[in-house]
Amino acid sequence: MTFAATVLTLYPEMFPGPLGVSLAGRALDAGTWSMDAVQIRDFATDKHRTVDDTPAGGGAGMVLKADVLAAAIDHARGKQPDAPVIAMTPRGTPLTQARVRQLAAGPGVTVLCGRFEGFDERIFEGRDVEEVSVGDVILSGGEVGALLLLDACIRLLPGVMGAASSGVEESFESGLLEYPHFTRPVEWEGRTIPEVLRSGDHAKIAAWRKQRSEDDTRLRRPDLWERHIGVRDQSASGARRKDEGTGK
Amino acid sequence: MTFAATVLTLYPEMFPGPLGVSLAGRALDAGTWSMDAVQIRDFATDKHRTVDDTPAGGGAGMVLKADVLAAAIDHARGKQPDAPVIAMTPRGTPLTQARVRQLAAGPGVTVLCGRFEGFDERIFEGRDVEEVSVGDVILSGGEVGALLLLDACIRLLPGVMGAASSGVEESFESGLLEYPHFTRPVEWEGRTIPEVLRSGDHAKIAAWRKQRSEDDTRLRRPDLWERHIGVRDQSASGARRKDEGTGK
Repeated sequence: MTFAATVLTLYPEMFPGPLGVSLAGRALDAGTWSMDAVQIRDFATDKHRTVDDTPAGGGAGMVLKADVLAAAIDHARGKQPDAPVIAMTPRGTPLTQARVRQLAAGPGVTVLCGRFEGFDERIFEGRDVEEVSVGDVILSGGEVGALLLLDACIRLLPGVMGAASSGVEESFESGLLEYPHFTRPVEWEGRTIPEVLRSGDHAKIAAWRKQRSEDDTRLRRPDLWERHIGVRDQSASGARRKDEGTGK
Repeated sequence: MTFAATVLTLYPEMFPGPLGVSLAGRALDAGTWSMDAVQIRDFATDKHRTVDDTPAGGGAGMVLKADVLAAAIDHARGKQPDAPVIAMTPRGTPLTQARVRQLAAGPGVTVLCGRFEGFDERIFEGRDVEEVSVGDVILSGGEVGALLLLDACIRLLPGVMGAASSGVEESFESGLLEYPHFTRPVEWEGRTIPEVLRSGDHAKIAAWRKQRSEDDTRLRRPDLWERHIGVRDQSASGARRKDEGTGK
Protein backbone atom coordinates (compact mmCIF):
# COMPACT_ATOMS: atom_id res chain seq x y z
CA MET A 1 0.00 0.00 0.00
CA THR A 2 1.28 3.42 -0.88
CA PHE A 3 1.42 6.04 1.87
CA ALA A 4 -0.10 9.11 0.23
CA ALA A 5 1.36 12.46 1.28
CA THR A 6 -0.59 15.52 0.17
CA VAL A 7 0.76 18.95 1.00
CA LEU A 8 -1.38 22.08 0.64
CA THR A 9 1.03 24.95 0.20
CA LEU A 10 1.76 28.24 -1.54
CA TYR A 11 5.17 26.78 -2.48
CA PRO A 12 4.60 23.38 -4.09
CA GLU A 13 8.06 23.62 -5.69
CA MET A 14 9.55 22.94 -2.22
CA PHE A 15 8.34 19.31 -2.45
CA PRO A 16 9.56 16.59 -2.41
CA GLY A 17 12.79 18.62 -1.96
CA PRO A 18 15.06 16.80 0.49
CA LEU A 19 12.58 13.90 0.56
CA GLY A 20 13.44 13.19 -3.08
CA VAL A 21 16.97 12.17 -2.00
CA SER A 22 18.44 9.21 -0.06
CA LEU A 23 16.16 6.68 1.67
CA ALA A 24 12.98 8.72 1.26
CA GLY A 25 13.79 9.42 -2.38
CA ARG A 26 14.37 5.76 -3.18
CA ALA A 27 11.13 4.86 -1.40
CA LEU A 28 9.32 7.53 -3.44
CA ASP A 29 10.72 6.07 -6.66
CA ALA A 30 9.74 2.58 -5.50
CA GLY A 31 6.14 3.68 -4.85
CA THR A 32 6.29 3.11 -1.08
CA TRP A 33 4.90 6.59 -0.71
CA SER A 34 3.53 9.22 -3.08
CA MET A 35 3.80 12.98 -2.97
CA ASP A 36 1.16 15.45 -4.18
CA ALA A 37 2.00 19.11 -3.58
CA VAL A 38 -1.14 21.16 -4.16
CA GLN A 39 -1.07 24.92 -4.77
CA ILE A 40 -3.51 26.58 -2.33
CA ARG A 41 -3.77 29.55 -4.69
CA ASP A 42 -5.57 27.34 -7.22
CA PHE A 43 -8.57 27.41 -4.89
CA ALA A 44 -8.89 31.19 -4.75
CA THR A 45 -12.09 32.38 -6.40
CA ASP A 46 -11.37 35.97 -7.40
CA LYS A 47 -9.45 37.10 -10.45
CA HIS A 48 -6.45 38.18 -8.34
CA ARG A 49 -6.26 34.65 -6.88
CA THR A 50 -6.34 36.11 -3.36
CA VAL A 51 -5.48 33.67 -0.56
CA ASP A 52 -5.09 36.06 2.37
CA ASP A 53 -6.58 39.17 3.93
CA THR A 54 -5.82 41.54 6.81
CA PRO A 55 -6.38 40.29 10.38
CA ALA A 56 -9.72 41.11 11.97
CA GLY A 57 -9.07 43.53 14.82
CA GLY A 58 -5.96 44.91 13.16
CA GLY A 59 -2.31 44.06 13.46
CA ALA A 60 0.63 43.16 11.27
CA GLY A 61 0.69 40.59 8.51
CA MET A 62 -1.94 38.69 6.58
CA VAL A 63 -4.17 35.74 7.45
CA LEU A 64 -4.99 32.82 5.14
CA LYS A 65 -8.70 32.86 4.28
CA ALA A 66 -10.94 30.10 5.66
CA ASP A 67 -12.94 29.79 2.43
CA VAL A 68 -9.89 29.25 0.25
CA LEU A 69 -8.31 26.82 2.72
CA ALA A 70 -11.59 24.91 2.97
CA ALA A 71 -11.73 24.46 -0.79
CA ALA A 72 -8.16 23.14 -0.84
CA ILE A 73 -8.86 20.75 2.05
CA ASP A 74 -12.08 19.54 0.42
CA HIS A 75 -10.11 18.77 -2.74
CA ALA A 76 -7.55 16.73 -0.76
CA ARG A 77 -10.26 14.94 1.26
CA GLY A 78 -12.05 14.09 -1.97
CA LYS A 79 -8.98 12.18 -3.09
CA GLN A 80 -7.94 10.78 0.32
CA PRO A 81 -11.03 10.69 2.54
CA ASP A 82 -9.32 8.67 5.28
CA ALA A 83 -6.10 10.65 5.61
CA PRO A 84 -6.02 13.02 8.59
CA VAL A 85 -5.57 16.70 7.78
CA ILE A 86 -2.81 18.31 9.83
CA ALA A 87 -1.97 22.01 9.93
CA MET A 88 1.56 23.01 10.91
CA THR A 89 1.25 25.80 13.46
CA PRO A 90 3.15 26.90 16.58
CA ARG A 91 -0.24 26.87 18.38
CA GLY A 92 -0.56 23.14 17.77
CA THR A 93 0.14 20.01 19.81
CA PRO A 94 3.86 19.18 19.74
CA LEU A 95 4.51 16.31 17.35
CA THR A 96 5.50 13.08 19.09
CA GLN A 97 6.99 9.84 17.83
CA ALA A 98 3.80 8.07 18.95
CA ARG A 99 1.70 10.28 16.65
CA VAL A 100 4.21 9.78 13.84
CA ARG A 101 3.89 6.02 14.24
CA GLN A 102 0.07 6.25 14.09
CA LEU A 103 0.25 8.34 10.95
CA ALA A 104 2.78 6.02 9.29
CA ALA A 105 0.47 3.06 9.95
CA GLY A 106 -2.38 4.82 8.15
CA PRO A 107 -3.23 5.56 4.52
CA GLY A 108 -1.32 8.85 4.43
CA VAL A 109 -1.59 12.41 5.60
CA THR A 110 -2.65 15.79 4.24
CA VAL A 111 -0.47 18.60 5.56
CA LEU A 112 -1.67 22.19 5.46
CA CYS A 113 1.15 24.75 5.39
CA GLY A 114 0.62 28.34 6.52
CA ARG A 115 2.53 31.44 5.56
CA PHE A 116 2.19 35.03 6.77
CA GLU A 117 0.46 35.35 10.16
CA GLY A 118 -1.25 31.97 9.88
CA PHE A 119 -4.70 30.52 9.32
CA ASP A 120 -8.18 31.86 9.93
CA GLU A 121 -8.91 29.99 13.17
CA ARG A 122 -12.36 28.85 11.94
CA ILE A 123 -10.78 26.37 9.53
CA PHE A 124 -9.70 24.02 12.32
CA GLU A 125 -13.19 23.24 13.61
CA GLY A 126 -14.84 23.89 10.29
CA ARG A 127 -12.84 21.17 8.55
CA ASP A 128 -11.68 18.98 11.47
CA VAL A 129 -8.05 19.95 11.09
CA GLU A 130 -5.49 18.76 13.64
CA GLU A 131 -3.05 21.48 14.74
CA VAL A 132 0.51 20.24 15.13
CA SER A 133 3.69 22.05 16.16
CA VAL A 134 7.30 21.08 15.48
CA GLY A 135 9.09 22.94 18.23
CA ASP A 136 8.77 26.28 19.96
CA VAL A 137 10.28 28.33 17.17
CA ILE A 138 8.77 30.51 14.48
CA LEU A 139 9.33 29.44 10.89
CA SER A 140 8.71 31.37 7.70
CA GLY A 141 5.93 28.89 6.87
CA GLY A 142 4.70 25.37 7.46
CA GLU A 143 6.68 23.79 4.64
CA VAL A 144 9.80 22.81 6.58
CA GLY A 145 7.57 21.43 9.34
CA ALA A 146 5.72 19.38 6.73
CA LEU A 147 9.04 17.98 5.46
CA LEU A 148 9.95 17.05 9.03
CA LEU A 149 6.63 15.33 9.69
CA LEU A 150 6.78 13.42 6.39
CA ASP A 151 10.43 12.40 6.89
CA ALA A 152 9.56 10.98 10.31
CA CYS A 153 6.64 9.01 8.83
CA ILE A 154 8.40 7.77 5.71
CA ARG A 155 11.33 6.18 7.50
CA LEU A 156 8.82 3.99 9.37
CA LEU A 157 7.13 2.66 6.22
CA PRO A 158 7.75 -1.03 5.55
CA GLY A 159 10.99 -1.59 3.68
CA VAL A 160 12.35 1.96 3.94
CA MET A 161 14.85 1.52 6.76
CA GLY A 162 15.00 -2.25 7.05
CA ALA A 163 14.82 -4.03 10.39
CA ALA A 164 18.02 -2.38 11.61
CA SER A 165 16.33 0.64 13.11
CA SER A 166 13.55 -0.95 15.10
CA GLY A 167 15.53 -0.99 18.37
CA VAL A 168 16.13 2.74 18.29
CA GLU A 169 12.51 3.51 17.83
CA GLU A 170 11.50 1.38 20.76
CA SER A 171 14.13 3.09 22.82
CA PHE A 172 12.76 6.54 22.01
CA GLU A 173 9.17 5.47 22.38
CA SER A 174 9.83 4.30 25.90
CA GLY A 175 9.94 8.05 26.54
CA LEU A 176 13.69 8.24 27.18
CA LEU A 177 16.58 9.70 25.24
CA GLU A 178 18.76 7.15 23.55
CA TYR A 179 22.09 6.20 25.17
CA PRO A 180 25.27 7.61 23.58
CA HIS A 181 27.07 5.83 20.78
CA PHE A 182 30.75 5.17 20.16
CA THR A 183 32.71 3.55 17.36
CA ARG A 184 36.34 2.97 16.38
CA PRO A 185 39.02 4.15 16.94
CA VAL A 186 39.02 2.97 20.58
CA GLU A 187 41.15 5.98 21.46
CA TRP A 188 40.60 9.28 19.69
CA GLU A 189 42.56 12.35 20.77
CA GLY A 190 43.03 10.86 24.22
CA ARG A 191 39.33 10.04 24.62
CA THR A 192 38.56 6.32 24.92
CA ILE A 193 35.38 4.35 24.37
CA PRO A 194 33.93 3.40 27.79
CA GLU A 195 35.48 0.10 28.87
CA VAL A 196 32.17 -1.68 29.44
CA LEU A 197 31.32 -1.32 25.75
CA ARG A 198 34.51 -3.20 24.90
CA SER A 199 33.92 -5.93 27.48
CA GLY A 200 31.83 -8.24 25.31
CA ASP A 201 29.56 -8.73 28.34
CA HIS A 202 26.13 -8.22 26.80
CA ALA A 203 24.25 -8.02 30.09
CA LYS A 204 26.65 -5.37 31.43
CA ILE A 205 26.45 -3.42 28.17
CA ALA A 206 22.65 -3.47 28.26
CA ALA A 207 22.66 -2.32 31.89
CA TRP A 208 25.12 0.52 31.13
CA ARG A 209 23.04 1.68 28.19
CA LYS A 210 19.81 1.63 30.21
CA GLN A 211 21.50 3.59 33.00
CA ARG A 212 22.92 6.21 30.61
CA SER A 213 19.58 6.49 28.86
CA GLU A 214 17.88 7.19 32.19
CA ASP A 215 20.62 9.47 33.54
CA ASP A 216 20.84 11.53 30.35
CA THR A 217 17.08 11.90 30.17
CA ARG A 218 16.88 13.05 33.78
CA LEU A 219 19.72 15.56 33.33
CA ARG A 220 19.00 16.83 29.83
CA ARG A 221 15.23 16.57 29.63
CA PRO A 222 13.58 16.69 33.05
CA ASP A 223 10.27 17.20 31.20
CA LEU A 224 10.56 13.82 29.46
CA TRP A 225 11.82 12.17 32.64
CA GLU A 226 8.86 13.37 34.71
CA ARG A 227 6.45 12.11 32.06
CA HIS A 228 8.31 8.78 31.94
CA ILE A 229 8.12 8.40 35.72
CA GLY A 230 4.44 9.32 35.63
CA VAL A 231 3.70 6.71 32.98
CA ARG A 232 5.73 4.12 34.88
CA ASP A 233 3.79 4.80 38.09
CA GLN A 234 0.52 4.56 36.22
CA SER A 235 1.43 1.21 34.67
CA ALA A 236 2.61 -0.03 38.05
CA SER A 237 -0.66 0.93 39.72
CA GLY A 238 -2.54 -0.52 36.73
CA ALA A 239 -0.68 -3.80 37.23
CA ARG A 240 -1.43 -3.71 40.92
CA ARG A 241 -5.10 -3.18 40.30
CA LYS A 242 -5.05 -6.17 37.96
CA ASP A 243 -3.32 -8.28 40.61
CA GLU A 244 -5.86 -7.25 43.17
CA GLY A 245 -8.60 -8.18 40.74
CA THR A 246 -7.11 -11.62 40.25
CA GLY A 247 -6.74 -12.06 44.00
CA LYS A 248 -10.47 -11.73 44.64
CA MET B 1 26.94 41.44 7.06
CA THR B 2 26.20 38.08 5.54
CA PHE B 3 24.92 35.33 7.84
CA ALA B 4 27.03 32.32 6.88
CA ALA B 5 25.29 28.94 7.06
CA THR B 6 27.56 25.92 6.74
CA VAL B 7 26.00 22.46 6.76
CA LEU B 8 28.13 19.34 7.23
CA THR B 9 26.16 16.50 5.67
CA LEU B 10 26.29 13.31 3.65
CA TYR B 11 23.61 14.85 1.39
CA PRO B 12 24.77 18.33 0.34
CA GLU B 13 22.33 18.16 -2.58
CA MET B 14 19.49 18.71 -0.07
CA PHE B 15 20.64 22.34 0.39
CA PRO B 16 19.49 25.05 0.05
CA GLY B 17 16.40 23.04 -1.03
CA PRO B 18 13.29 24.79 0.31
CA LEU B 19 15.47 27.65 1.53
CA GLY B 20 16.24 28.53 -2.09
CA VAL B 21 12.58 29.54 -2.57
CA SER B 22 10.39 32.41 -1.31
CA LEU B 23 11.69 34.85 1.33
CA ALA B 24 14.76 32.80 2.24
CA GLY B 25 15.61 32.26 -1.43
CA ARG B 26 15.36 35.96 -2.23
CA ALA B 27 17.54 36.75 0.79
CA LEU B 28 20.07 34.16 -0.40
CA ASP B 29 20.16 35.78 -3.84
CA ALA B 30 20.51 39.19 -2.21
CA GLY B 31 23.51 38.03 -0.15
CA THR B 32 21.76 38.47 3.22
CA TRP B 33 22.89 34.93 4.01
CA SER B 34 25.16 32.40 2.34
CA MET B 35 24.90 28.63 2.14
CA ASP B 36 27.83 26.20 2.05
CA ALA B 37 26.85 22.53 2.10
CA VAL B 38 29.96 20.46 2.81
CA GLN B 39 30.21 16.74 2.07
CA ILE B 40 31.37 14.95 5.25
CA ARG B 41 32.66 12.07 3.11
CA ASP B 42 35.34 14.38 1.69
CA PHE B 43 37.05 14.19 5.09
CA ALA B 44 37.33 10.38 5.19
CA THR B 45 40.93 9.24 4.99
CA ASP B 46 40.74 5.70 3.62
CA LYS B 47 40.30 4.72 -0.01
CA HIS B 48 36.70 3.59 0.59
CA ARG B 49 35.89 7.05 2.00
CA THR B 50 34.46 5.44 5.12
CA VAL B 51 32.46 7.78 7.39
CA ASP B 52 30.88 5.25 9.76
CA ASP B 53 31.57 2.06 11.67
CA THR B 54 29.67 -0.43 13.84
CA PRO B 55 28.63 0.69 17.35
CA ALA B 56 30.97 -0.24 20.19
CA GLY B 57 29.20 -2.79 22.38
CA GLY B 58 27.10 -4.07 19.47
CA GLY B 59 23.66 -3.20 18.21
CA ALA B 60 21.96 -2.19 15.00
CA GLY B 61 23.06 0.52 12.61
CA MET B 62 26.25 2.46 12.07
CA VAL B 63 27.84 5.36 13.96
CA LEU B 64 29.57 8.37 12.35
CA LYS B 65 33.27 8.34 13.16
CA ALA B 66 34.68 11.01 15.48
CA ASP B 67 37.90 11.44 13.46
CA VAL B 68 36.06 12.10 10.19
CA LEU B 69 33.54 14.43 11.87
CA ALA B 70 36.40 16.30 13.58
CA ALA B 71 38.14 16.91 10.26
CA ALA B 72 34.91 18.25 8.75
CA ILE B 73 34.28 20.52 11.77
CA ASP B 74 37.88 21.78 11.73
CA HIS B 75 37.44 22.69 8.07
CA ALA B 76 34.26 24.67 8.86
CA ARG B 77 35.84 26.35 11.91
CA GLY B 78 38.83 27.33 9.79
CA LYS B 79 36.50 29.30 7.57
CA GLN B 80 34.11 30.57 10.26
CA PRO B 81 35.94 30.54 13.60
CA ASP B 82 33.20 32.44 15.43
CA ALA B 83 30.17 30.49 14.24
CA PRO B 84 28.84 27.99 16.78
CA VAL B 85 28.80 24.34 15.68
CA ILE B 86 25.44 22.68 16.30
CA ALA B 87 24.68 18.99 15.87
CA MET B 88 21.08 17.99 15.19
CA THR B 89 20.29 15.08 17.52
CA PRO B 90 17.24 13.87 19.46
CA ARG B 91 19.51 13.77 22.54
CA GLY B 92 20.05 17.54 22.29
CA THR B 93 18.52 20.56 23.96
CA PRO B 94 15.18 21.45 22.35
CA LEU B 95 15.58 24.43 20.04
CA THR B 96 13.91 27.59 21.32
CA GLN B 97 13.08 30.90 19.71
CA ALA B 98 15.47 32.57 22.17
CA ARG B 99 18.37 30.43 20.90
CA VAL B 100 17.31 31.09 17.30
CA ARG B 101 17.39 34.83 17.96
CA GLN B 102 20.90 34.58 19.45
CA LEU B 103 22.11 32.62 16.44
CA ALA B 104 20.51 35.03 13.96
CA ALA B 105 22.29 37.94 15.69
CA GLY B 106 25.66 36.22 15.22
CA PRO B 107 27.98 35.64 12.25
CA GLY B 108 26.35 32.38 11.19
CA VAL B 109 26.10 28.75 12.22
CA THR B 110 27.67 25.44 11.28
CA VAL B 111 25.16 22.61 11.42
CA LEU B 112 26.33 19.01 11.68
CA CYS B 113 23.83 16.49 10.32
CA GLY B 114 23.84 12.86 11.40
CA ARG B 115 22.56 9.82 9.58
CA PHE B 116 22.38 6.16 10.64
CA GLU B 117 22.49 5.68 14.43
CA GLY B 118 24.13 9.04 15.06
CA PHE B 119 27.48 10.47 16.11
CA ASP B 120 30.38 9.09 18.09
CA GLU B 121 29.66 10.80 21.42
CA ARG B 122 33.26 11.95 21.83
CA ILE B 123 32.86 14.55 19.08
CA PHE B 124 30.66 16.79 21.24
CA GLU B 125 33.25 17.47 23.96
CA GLY B 126 36.18 16.97 21.62
CA ARG B 127 35.09 19.78 19.34
CA ASP B 128 32.76 21.83 21.55
CA VAL B 129 29.65 20.93 19.61
CA GLU B 130 26.23 22.04 20.86
CA GLU B 131 23.59 19.29 20.69
CA VAL B 132 20.18 20.55 19.57
CA SER B 133 16.89 18.73 19.06
CA VAL B 134 13.92 19.77 16.94
CA GLY B 135 11.14 17.79 18.57
CA ASP B 136 10.73 14.38 20.12
CA VAL B 137 10.58 12.47 16.86
CA ILE B 138 13.12 10.39 14.99
CA LEU B 139 14.15 11.62 11.57
CA SER B 140 16.11 9.84 8.86
CA GLY B 141 18.93 12.33 9.40
CA GLY B 142 19.74 15.80 10.63
CA GLU B 143 19.17 17.53 7.30
CA VAL B 144 15.50 18.45 7.76
CA GLY B 145 16.32 19.68 11.27
CA ALA B 146 19.08 21.84 9.79
CA LEU B 147 16.61 23.32 7.30
CA LEU B 148 14.25 24.10 10.16
CA LEU B 149 16.95 25.76 12.26
CA LEU B 150 18.20 27.81 9.30
CA ASP B 151 14.70 28.84 8.23
CA ALA B 152 13.99 30.10 11.77
CA CYS B 153 17.25 32.11 11.75
CA ILE B 154 17.00 33.50 8.24
CA ARG B 155 13.57 35.04 8.68
CA LEU B 156 15.00 37.13 11.54
CA LEU B 157 17.87 38.58 9.49
CA PRO B 158 17.56 42.30 8.79
CA GLY B 159 15.42 42.98 5.74
CA VAL B 160 14.11 39.45 5.23
CA MET B 161 10.63 39.78 6.74
CA GLY B 162 10.36 43.51 7.15
CA ALA B 163 9.11 45.12 10.34
CA ALA B 164 5.68 43.50 9.95
CA SER B 165 6.52 40.38 11.92
CA SER B 166 8.22 41.84 14.96
CA GLY B 167 5.08 41.82 17.08
CA VAL B 168 4.51 38.13 16.57
CA GLU B 169 7.99 37.27 17.65
CA GLU B 170 7.69 39.24 20.82
CA SER B 171 4.45 37.49 21.50
CA PHE B 172 6.05 34.06 21.15
CA GLU B 173 9.14 35.06 23.07
CA SER B 174 7.03 36.10 26.02
CA GLY B 175 6.65 32.33 26.37
CA LEU B 176 3.01 32.17 25.31
CA LEU B 177 1.23 30.82 22.27
CA GLU B 178 -0.05 33.45 19.92
CA TYR B 179 -3.75 34.37 20.00
CA PRO B 180 -5.93 33.05 17.16
CA HIS B 181 -6.37 34.96 13.92
CA PHE B 182 -9.44 35.68 11.81
CA THR B 183 -10.04 37.44 8.53
CA ARG B 184 -12.90 38.10 6.11
CA PRO B 185 -15.53 36.91 5.40
CA VAL B 186 -17.10 37.92 8.73
CA GLU B 187 -19.39 34.89 8.47
CA TRP B 188 -18.08 31.68 6.98
CA GLU B 189 -20.29 28.57 6.97
CA GLY B 190 -22.21 29.92 9.96
CA ARG B 191 -19.06 30.69 11.95
CA THR B 192 -18.52 34.38 12.70
CA ILE B 193 -15.46 36.36 13.64
CA PRO B 194 -15.61 37.16 17.41
CA GLU B 195 -17.52 40.42 17.83
CA VAL B 196 -14.80 42.13 19.85
CA LEU B 197 -12.44 41.94 16.87
CA ARG B 198 -14.97 43.87 14.82
CA SER B 199 -15.59 46.50 17.52
CA GLY B 200 -12.78 48.86 16.55
CA ASP B 201 -12.04 49.22 20.28
CA HIS B 202 -8.29 48.73 20.34
CA ALA B 203 -7.99 48.35 24.11
CA LYS B 204 -10.70 45.69 24.18
CA ILE B 205 -9.10 43.88 21.25
CA ALA B 206 -5.70 43.88 22.95
CA ALA B 207 -7.27 42.58 26.17
CA TRP B 208 -9.13 39.81 24.32
CA ARG B 209 -5.96 38.75 22.51
CA LYS B 210 -3.92 38.68 25.70
CA GLN B 211 -6.61 36.62 27.42
CA ARG B 212 -6.83 34.12 24.53
CA SER B 213 -3.07 33.88 24.39
CA GLU B 214 -2.95 33.03 28.09
CA ASP B 215 -5.97 30.71 28.04
CA ASP B 216 -4.77 28.80 24.99
CA THR B 217 -1.28 28.40 26.41
CA ARG B 218 -2.68 27.08 29.71
CA LEU B 219 -5.01 24.64 27.97
CA ARG B 220 -2.83 23.52 25.08
CA ARG B 221 0.67 23.75 26.51
CA PRO B 222 0.67 23.44 30.30
CA ASP B 223 4.47 22.99 30.04
CA LEU B 224 4.92 26.45 28.48
CA TRP B 225 2.40 27.95 30.88
CA GLU B 226 4.20 26.68 33.98
CA ARG B 227 7.50 28.04 32.68
CA HIS B 228 5.83 31.37 31.91
CA ILE B 229 4.38 31.60 35.42
CA GLY B 230 7.75 30.66 36.90
CA VAL B 231 9.54 33.38 34.93
CA ARG B 232 6.87 35.91 35.89
CA ASP B 233 7.25 35.06 39.59
CA GLN B 234 11.01 35.37 39.34
CA SER B 235 10.84 38.78 37.68
CA ALA B 236 8.32 39.90 40.30
CA SER B 237 10.56 38.87 43.16
CA GLY B 238 13.55 40.39 41.35
CA ALA B 239 11.65 43.68 41.10
CA ARG B 240 10.72 43.47 44.76
CA ARG B 241 14.33 42.94 45.77
CA LYS B 242 15.30 45.99 43.77
CA ASP B 243 12.60 48.08 45.48
CA GLU B 244 13.80 46.93 48.90
CA GLY B 245 17.34 47.88 47.92
CA THR B 246 16.22 51.35 46.94
CA GLY B 247 14.33 51.73 50.21
CA LYS B 248 17.41 51.31 52.34
